[in-house]
Amino acid sequence: MYNPQLTSDGQLRHLLSVEGLPKKILSQILDTAESFVGVAEREVKKVPLLRGKTVCNIFFENSTRTRTTFEIAAKRLSADVLNLNVNTSSQAKGETILDTVDNLIAMHADIFVVRHKQSGAAHLIAQHVAPHIHVINAGDGRHAHPTQGLLDVFTIRRYKPEMHNLRVAIVGDVLHSRVARSEIHALTTLGVPEVRVIAPKTLLPEHVEKLGVQVFHNMKAGLKDVDVVMMLRLQNERMNGAMLPSAQEYFKTYGLTQEKLDYAKPDAIVMHPGPMNRGVEIDSAVADGNQSVILPQVTYGIAVRMAVMAILAGNSASSIAGNGS
Amino acid sequence: MYNPQLTSDGQLRHLLSVEGLPKKILSQILDTAESFVGVAEREVKKVPLLRGKTVCNIFFENSTRTRTTFEIAAKRLSADVLNLNVNTSSQAKGETILDTVDNLIAMHADIFVVRHKQSGAAHLIAQHVAPHIHVINAGDGRHAHPTQGLLDVFTIRRYKPEMHNLRVAIVGDVLHSRVARSEIHALTTLGVPEVRVIAPKTLLPEHVEKLGVQVFHNMKAGLKDVDVVMMLRLQNERMNGAMLPSAQEYFKTYGLTQEKLDYAKPDAIVMHPGPMNRGVEIDSAVADGNQSVILPQVTYGIAVRMAVMAILAGNSASSIAGNGS
Amino acid sequence: MYNPQLTSDGQLRHLLSVEGLPKKILSQILDTAESFVGVAEREVKKVPLLRGKTVCNIFFENSTRTRTTFEIAAKRLSADVLNLNVNTSSQAKGETILDTVDNLIAMHADIFVVRHKQSGAAHLIAQHVAPHIHVINAGDGRHAHPTQGLLDVFTIRRYKPEMHNLRVAIVGDVLHSRVARSEIHALTTLGVPEVRVIAPKTLLPEHVEKLGVQVFHNMKAGLKDVDVVMMLRLQNERMNGAMLPSAQEYFKTYGLTQEKLDYAKPDAIVMHPGPMNRGVEIDSAVADGNQSVILPQVTYGIAVRMAVMAILAGNSASSIAGNGS
Repeated sequence: MYNPQLTSDGQLRHLLSVEGLPKKILSQILDTAESFVGVAEREVKKVPLLRGKTVCNIFFENSTRTRTTFEIAAKRLSADVLNLNVNTSSQAKGETILDTVDNLIAMHADIFVVRHKQSGAAHLIAQHVAPHIHVINAGDGRHAHPTQGLLDVFTIRRYKPEMHNLRVAIVGDVLHSRVARSEIHALTTLGVPEVRVIAPKTLLPEHVEKLGVQVFHNMKAGLKDVDVVMMLRLQNERMNGAMLPSAQEYFKTYGLTQEKLDYAKPDAIVMHPGPMNRGVEIDSAVADGNQSVILPQVTYGIAVRMAVMAILAGNSASSIAGNGS
Repeated sequence: MYNPQLTSDGQLRHLLSVEGLPKKILSQILDTAESFVGVAEREVKKVPLLRGKTVCNIFFENSTRTRTTFEIAAKRLSADVLNLNVNTSSQAKGETILDTVDNLIAMHADIFVVRHKQSGAAHLIAQHVAPHIHVINAGDGRHAHPTQGLLDVFTIRRYKPEMHNLRVAIVGDVLHSRVARSEIHALTTLGVPEVRVIAPKTLLPEHVEKLGVQVFHNMKAGLKDVDVVMMLRLQNERMNGAMLPSAQEYFKTYGLTQEKLDYAKPDAIVMHPGPMNRGVEIDSAVADGNQSVILPQVTYGIAVRMAVMAILAGNSASSIAGNGS
Repeated sequence: MYNPQLTSDGQLRHLLSVEGLPKKILSQILDTAESFVGVAEREVKKVPLLRGKTVCNIFFENSTRTRTTFEIAAKRLSADVLNLNVNTSSQAKGETILDTVDNLIAMHADIFVVRHKQSGAAHLIAQHVAPHIHVINAGDGRHAHPTQGLLDVFTIRRYKPEMHNLRVAIVGDVLHSRVARSEIHALTTLGVPEVRVIAPKTLLPEHVEKLGVQVFHNMKAGLKDVDVVMMLRLQNERMNGAMLPSAQEYFKTYGLTQEKLDYAKPDAIVMHPGPMNRGVEIDSAVADGNQSVILPQVTYGIAVRMAVMAILAGNSASSIAGNGS
């Protein structure tokens, strides 16, 4: 089957979604990211792998947080970075997305990081560009946000390396999450035997169990003996809406407190993609507690994004060793 | 006659408009740009010519496209780049343009790239600054946009090197175009014997024939046997206005289709400054067809802007050869 | 007494306000700045002291001018620079300031440059961060703007090195000035024996004389025989308000004209923090006259900001000599 993310000989060409990435590529990204964790701890946090390359962040919807992580990752690789907020630009003059992209390619952009609220925008661009141009999906609609999914898996592997032996619970708004589906796919591909989702029925997609997960509507049962608790963000617009009684009520039932966390294994880790709603989906004491790996997730997010860009530009884990600048 | 663009010994000091540039300087810019075309095709697209210099993009009106091209050009020359959107800044606090400029010079800015909707803003700044500071006009009102004019001429010279033997047609809204006048001047200065304009009377300046062009109101006659077809953009605000019946009607009469293009020579090239209104001034099949050089224009635009900055900073074609980093 | 700006062995850890900085640190900053004045005059205006470090400008209120000076300073030190306008970002999603900061630290930001309209925002962040992270206050409410105070003192020392022998007058809106209080403290700490303030009573804080200054309400008496005239900016919102009769009236009484300046010593220097209201607090002829050092203040502002960042990153005057790149 044709896979737009891979070249004909099975190398990563674009990163559009975690679905469709074979285990070999997932492992390559995670192993390469491992080599970049050390770079961030050096005195000089830079390697010259993308020197003279141009990374173009095209954001059709605003997201300072995501844009910043890609910008830092690209600069640590010594790339030149261009930030374009396209909603305020040529689009207003009636130019099509593909004309905008073609212009940037004509200026010799090498990698596009694309965020668009419509599902499939990054795919559309990936299908259009020449073989030496690479596209990274930085979030499209509620479809995919693959680097977030990858950094979550990377974080789990760092803290719990024996993945074939793990029990992972994903808690909260699975229905509207850009990443839950990617994470479920990545975890099962990497051999995690048991993935659970815990949420009210109104926040679960239909037939979610077909993704290979166990469904719980109760925190006590769902968190029982898990190794990893992945909290999802509750979007402001869901609270006090038709789907939920209130933020306070949600916190009481599904908000992660230490009391509920104690159902999990004593060394279970707590994750959250940020930004957190403290007191809604997670209690401050847990967010800042010693089981939380929420800030390490952010750190590893830079390493994972560096890894993806380095691999797309032709540099894999083996070629990076010793590449200090 | 005093020419603010040149030093007393005839070197380029500022780039304010193509008018007033002698043939020697035009050729110097085009020859220097030629040496930068190769840089963009290298693995590492960077030369250190402007390392440690500060290029300051002062945009009094928003133009992501133009700002991006100057930013890429400056970064490929290894300059530090500052982007200032001045309408949201000190101007609001009542500071004058020249006070803003003086402050940036005090911070040791070296080159100013200026865009302002008022004709003459770049000239005003150029007259004000000390001899070691350089100003590039990136578009002022409908007066001038010299790097666009230069990149168009560069593109023509690349595809049709025998300029003393060419027939060039400029089609569309000459009246409101920032560049048509510059192009006419550059083409005649570089020896092009026949320049035509094709447009309805309402989109032509009065006495346009005094610029040395032949005037046509009909595509069939105007395109007959030309080597180059330069389409101009029709601003959205002109369409459906008093000057034109409708966008559809305009396309029927002046929009470039393959059928009309066939009046030109079989190897004629098609140009457009972007962003394109597909289906208004140009048909998609022609824009994307094999006579189109619209995307190469964008590529050469980077090389021309690099050339102008390198020359202003004291580096000409001869000194650039072999300057890889 | 605990001083959050200093480490336990008396080194500069954060720059939050000039108050609380001992004379030794003030002199270290000024001496280090001296070594950077030369960098800006070199052909290549860059030193590699902060190479591979990330400087994060977090601006909770917009200030292009201040942000630009920190950005230039950081880039001349070869740092990577991130600009975040936080009012349009995660704050809108309900994230706290400290969560935003923690995320940026997790991305390995090294130095935060913070501007916030609430007094104490930079202090709050400084108290929160780990020992290897440094905070620079770039203006909080009307409390403090220490790099502005330091660059003013640096400028005075450059033009009038015998500080124990000076008479300095600060003129204008002392009440709402972010810097007047810092300057008074720095000047007296560095041994200036006589500091005067000249203003109408409505623009002076209560008990201002307790800061060790002489108070004047009259320009003739106040400027008599001074070496330095420091004009303050009159905020637009003060003019025509309840506190002042009118901008014209203010100019007549307190605006600096050559006639009033002649009461000072013949070699007195004139300073202003910018942006200037020409014809309100200062006459154009004086602002552009040969006693004005207003533009050198801007130049020295870059050197002072480079000095503060270099010291925070562990590089002091002695280690900088000969650090060309």
